[in-house]
Amino acid sequence: MTTVTLGIDVGGTNTKIGFVDRHGRCLASTHISTGADEPFSNFLENVFKTVKALSKEAGDIEMVAVGIGAPNANYYTGKIEEAVNLKGWGKEVAIADLMEEHFKVPVAITNDANAAALGEMKFGVAQGMKNFIVATLGTGLGSGIIVNGDLLYGHDGFAGELGHITVVEEGRTCGCGRRGCLETYVSATGIKRTMFELLADSNGSSSLANKTFEQLTAKDIFDAAEAGDALAKEAFEVTGEILGKSLADAIAIFSPEAIVLFGGLASAGDYITQPTRRAMEENCLHIFKGKTRLVVSNLEGDNTAILGSSALAWQEYEKKKNA
Amino acid sequence: MTTVTLGIDVGGTNTKIGFVDRHGRCLASTHISTGADEPFSNFLENVFKTVKALSKEAGDIEMVAVGIGAPNANYYTGKIEEAVNLKGWGKEVAIADLMEEHFKVPVAITNDANAAALGEMKFGVAQGMKNFIVATLGTGLGSGIIVNGDLLYGHDGFAGELGHITVVEEGRTCGCGRRGCLETYVSATGIKRTMFELLADSNGSSSLANKTFEQLTAKDIFDAAEAGDALAKEAFEVTGEILGKSLADAIAIFSPEAIVLFGGLASAGDYITQPTRRAMEENCLHIFKGKTRLVVSNLEGDNTAILGSSALAWQEYEKKKNA
Repeated sequence: MTTVTLGIDVGGTNTKIGFVDRHGRCLASTHISTGADEPFSNFLENVFKTVKALSKEAGDIEMVAVGIGAPNANYYTGKIEEAVNLKGWGKEVAIADLMEEHFKVPVAITNDANAAALGEMKFGVAQGMKNFIVATLGTGLGSGIIVNGDLLYGHDGFAGELGHITVVEEGRTCGCGRRGCLETYVSATGIKRTMFELLADSNGSSSLANKTFEQLTAKDIFDAAEAGDALAKEAFEVTGEILGKSLADAIAIFSPEAIVLFGGLASAGDYITQPTRRAMEENCLHIFKGKTRLVVSNLEGDNTAILGSSALAWQEYEKKKNA
Repeated sequence: MTTVTLGIDVGGTNTKIGFVDRHGRCLASTHISTGADEPFSNFLENVFKTVKALSKEAGDIEMVAVGIGAPNANYYTGKIEEAVNLKGWGKEVAIADLMEEHFKVPVAITNDANAAALGEMKFGVAQGMKNFIVATLGTGLGSGIIVNGDLLYGHDGFAGELGHITVVEEGRTCGCGRRGCLETYVSATGIKRTMFELLADSNGSSSLANKTFEQLTAKDIFDAAEAGDALAKEAFEVTGEILGKSLADAIAIFSPEAIVLFGGLASAGDYITQPTRRAMEENCLHIFKGKTRLVVSNLEGDNTAILGSSALAWQEYEKKKNA
């Protein structure tokens, strides 16, 4: 019998579910529609049904804990609170308690960037580290910060919002209602906005001049850079420069062993890491220069989010066992 | 017999030494010249002699641990490393080991801002808190950050340099060799530089127009504000605005229960706290608005630094006892 945890990653559209063993092997996984506009009870039933089917597929397993990564998930309360992309679920749902009642094992929740950080620590590039930062570069910029081997949750459970550090005074409008937040520059959306500024400035001298704002993706910018488009390369330079400067500040605050880049934009490789690393080192306080590694996540594929959530479950399981 | 710890605060000019009981009562204290240009061995002998005399004065005590606050002190290594204002001591001194050898009790060291944070947690306004930030506003800006009841040290022991966050791109030159660091705006020196900018801008329309840069102190600016000087008041407004914005970023990162202002500039009361609090709340990410208190330290007088160092000693003592 294999001891496993269940990892659940709740997204605005789909929810990924899988059983993961101690070594990060995903024994069985699937995904279901989240149904963000329907009542939460529908989602719960769907998860329960799916897990039952999945456990048959996984073979001879004992499930010892459940970890859930979800937007606006509060580790302290076990609730998803006011998640804008889960409208049908109302103001808050006590997802951890309700799952615990059903599965009869410890259930913990956290947001997806925090889950990613735990995933890196248990299964990825941050194994053995106790102080590091994961920046997830997706539609927005999320961050999971590990201090002394534990996630930084702060007083209310919502710490770690590096994406909403102000980097440009009176800068770009942000979905949070403020201006100049880091994620308006450094994210899949941010680099697209930068590309449009560069197109405006250069009077459209780029192969991407034929794309509408709605059409353009970070992947298009990467492909254009690969094909030699100078402006697309510059978009990565600008993005990395801003990210690197912000990471220099983060290093002065946290003195981390490493900063791990994760998510879509991170897969652009050198295009993003080179300018980021250069700006980070250039702007670093002297006592920290050369001390913090910048690395890209090595967790890949469809099950990455499941691995992160399951790492949370494994952490909870170990904590309860040692308590 | 009273159980006490020894608190030592090493400054560039003077070193304060005192015995402190569990309740933060300083049973006996004194100060000696640090002798920063002389060999470290002189300092050590001087401390040992002083402590011996002081212990007679303190009465029937048992000393169980020693805590040292010092510039560039590394908690992990027990060494003071490359402190620019302790030139005679060389590249590094193993102060904790050498003291431990002599006193035969646990000895721990940390920098002064970290010691201040521990002092607030054990004896001051942060009693009962587990997540908060202390900003020490002296010649520079130091910070001690408490996460889950422990100091944030990071990978190398030097985390928590909020004073060297870049707040103005290509801003004021900083002693660290970079530009635009928070402490070049928010510190006793920072407000003086702001006052001189305002004097330049307003063509000297202030009672402080008769002071040279060398003469002017933060206390002068406070006194002028008290006497109704509009430009002096504006200097506090500008300083608080920049501090408040930076604290809004710190809140997004740490979600602390409180931010404690400590040191000379903090004693200017409303002049500094009002604009700071306003800018902090205005610039806060919505989910954190109204959650973090801004308070001024209530530890006062000559023994504050001794209390901080002794709080470190008490923490070490408790840790060893529970280990």
